[in-house]
Amino acid sequence: MLNKLIREILKSEKLSIAKGISLVENESPHSRELLKSLYKNTGNAYLIGITGPPGAGKSTLTNALTKILRENKYKVGIIAVDPTSPFTGGALLGDRIRMQEIGTDKDVFIRSMATRGSLGGLSKKAKEACEILDASGKDFIIIETVGVGQSELDIAQTADTTIVVLVPESGDAVQTMKAGLMEIGDIFVINKCDRQGADVLATALKTMLHLKMKEHEIWDIKVIKTIGTQNKGIDELNKEIFRHRTYLETNGKMKIKRRDNLIKQIYELVNNKLEIKFWSDERRSIMDDKLDRILDRESTPYDFVDEVFKNFKY
Amino acid sequence: MLNKLIREILKSEKLSIAKGISLVENESPHSRELLKSLYKNTGNAYLIGITGPPGAGKSTLTNALTKILRENKYKVGIIAVDPTSPFTGGALLGDRIRMQEIGTDKDVFIRSMATRGSLGGLSKKAKEACEILDASGKDFIIIETVGVGQSELDIAQTADTTIVVLVPESGDAVQTMKAGLMEIGDIFVINKCDRQGADVLATALKTMLHLKMKEHEIWDIKVIKTIGTQNKGIDELNKEIFRHRTYLETNGKMKIKRRDNLIKQIYELVNNKLEIKFWSDERRSIMDDKLDRILDRESTPYDFVDEVFKNFKY
Repeated sequence: MLNKLIREILKSEKLSIAKGISLVENESPHSRELLKSLYKNTGNAYLIGITGPPGAGKSTLTNALTKILRENKYKVGIIAVDPTSPFTGGALLGDRIRMQEIGTDKDVFIRSMATRGSLGGLSKKAKEACEILDASGKDFIIIETVGVGQSELDIAQTADTTIVVLVPESGDAVQTMKAGLMEIGDIFVINKCDRQGADVLATALKTMLHLKMKEHEIWDIKVIKTIGTQNKGIDELNKEIFRHRTYLETNGKMKIKRRDNLIKQIYELVNNKLEIKFWSDERRSIMDDKLDRILDRESTPYDFVDEVFKNFKY
Repeated sequence: MLNKLIREILKSEKLSIAKGISLVENESPHSRELLKSLYKNTGNAYLIGITGPPGAGKSTLTNALTKILRENKYKVGIIAVDPTSPFTGGALLGDRIRMQEIGTDKDVFIRSMATRGSLGGLSKKAKEACEILDASGKDFIIIETVGVGQSELDIAQTADTTIVVLVPESGDAVQTMKAGLMEIGDIFVINKCDRQGADVLATALKTMLHLKMKEHEIWDIKVIKTIGTQNKGIDELNKEIFRHRTYLETNGKMKIKRRDNLIKQIYELVNNKLEIKFWSDERRSIMDDKLDRILDRESTPYDFVDEVFKNFKY
C-alpha cells in the first residue's frame, strides 16, 4: 500500500500527496518510511518563505505569485502554516477560499497546517510536507507563516528565499526590527502600499537595511511595494525572487544554506525523538508523584530533574 | 560566595538580584545551586503576563501599572522578554529609558532579557529570573513579551493573569484570533484607544470572546480601553487584574494553573538537559561526516537519526 502511495506521489497525484501529508501530520508510523523512500527524489524544488505580521496580506501575495509562476509553467506547492486554534477552524476555511482561486489547477497543491500541540512539532511537520511536495515534482514550494514569533521565523528561514511582508500600519520600522523580521528577510515587501505611511516605512526600512548590511555581503536587499489585491508589484517581486536565486546559486551560498537547514532538521528530529523516548509512562508517573511536594516547596523542580536523569544513559 | 548572594537576594538587594539573574542568563554552573536554594522562598509573587504585537505600547502600560502597584506599597519585578537582535541593542536602550521613570525606586526591579540563541532557552531563563524576583520578595512580577509567536505566548501563559494588548491598527479581530492571542488572554486591552477603529475592534473582540466562552467557565473576559501615555484606563486595568486574582483563588483554579506551569517547567528543564547531553562531541562529528552524503541524497536524515539513536539508552 505504501509502495502505491509513493508511486503516485512521484507521479504528482493530488490525492496521494494529500494522503502523504496527512500521514506526516498525524505522525503515522508509516510516515517515516514514506519520507525515507521519497528523500532521494527531493532537493529539486526551490523554497520560498513568506512571513510577516497577521493581516499583512500574505495569502493574497502567495496566490498572486503562484499565478505568475504558473504562467511560466512552473509547478507550485503551497504550505500555509497557520497557528489557528481548533476553536476558529480558520485553516480549513482559508483552504476553501483559496481552492476557488488557484486550487483547481492540477499543478498547484495547497495545504494549510494548523497548530496542534507544540509549534515545534508543526515546524518539523511543515518541512516534511515540503519534502513530499518536492518529491512530487513541484518546482517551487511557498511556505507561508502567520505570526512573527521565533518559531514562525524558524520555519520561514528554512526557505531558500525569505520574503518579509509588511503593511504601512504594521507599526514603524523599529517595531519591525524588534519583531526579529529585519534579520531574516532576503526581500522586503510593503503590501497595501496605497495606504498612508507606505513611503515613510519604505524609506525607514531602506535606511535600516543599509545600516545592517555587512561589508562582505553582496546581496542588496530590496524593498518592493505591492498591492496584492490589485496584482500590483507582483511581477517585480517575482523577478526579485529569481534574482536572489541566481545570487545564491552563483555564490555557492545555496549549498551552505541547505547544509545549515539540514543540520537544523536533524536537531529537530533528534529532539523530537528524545522527548518521546524520555517520557516513558514510568517517568511520567514519578513526576506526578513529586508535583505536590514541589508545589509545597518541600523539593524543587531542579532536584527532581537531577534525580530522574540519574538512571539515564547517553 | 553563593551563600552571600542568596542572603542578599532574600534581602531584596538590587545588585544581588541583578547578579543572580546574570548567572541564570549566562547559564553559569552556579545558577542551578542558586535556584535550588531560593526555591523554598518562591511561590508568593503574583505573575502578570503582558503580551501583544510589537508597537502595542506594552512597556508604557507596564510602567503605568507599576506606578499604581507602588502606590499601594506592592513590590514589583519586571522581566521584559525582548527578541531584539544583537544588531539593534534595543533591550539595553529600553532599560535605560525605563530606569529614568520607575527604575530608581528601590522596590522596583526591571530587567530586559534579549534573545540569544534559541527562544526556547530564553523562556526557561525568563522563568528562572522570575523565581529570583519571587524569592527576593516581590509581590508582583510582570513578564512582558514582545511578539506574538508561539514561544512568546508560552512565556505569557505561565503568568497567573495574562493581559493581551492590542491597538486599533493591530488589524481586525480575526487577525488577532489567527495570531493565537484569543486563546490566552484573561484580560484584553485596547491601548491607544483614541485612535480610529478602537470601538469597532472592541465590539468585534467582545463578540468573539462571547462565542469562545465555554458554558462551564465563569470568568467573563473583559475588554478594557486604555491610553497608556495619558494614564487613562490603567486604574480599571489594575482592578481587573485583582478581580481575576480573586477569581483564581476562590475557585481553586490558581492551584491547577500553577501545577500545569510546574509540569511545563519540568519538561523544559528535561528537554534542555537532553539536548545538551545527547549532542556529545562524538555525535556531532558523526553528523558532520554524514551531511554531504545526505545532501547528495545517498542517505536520509531519517536513517541518520535512527543510526545515532542505536547506541542510546533511555
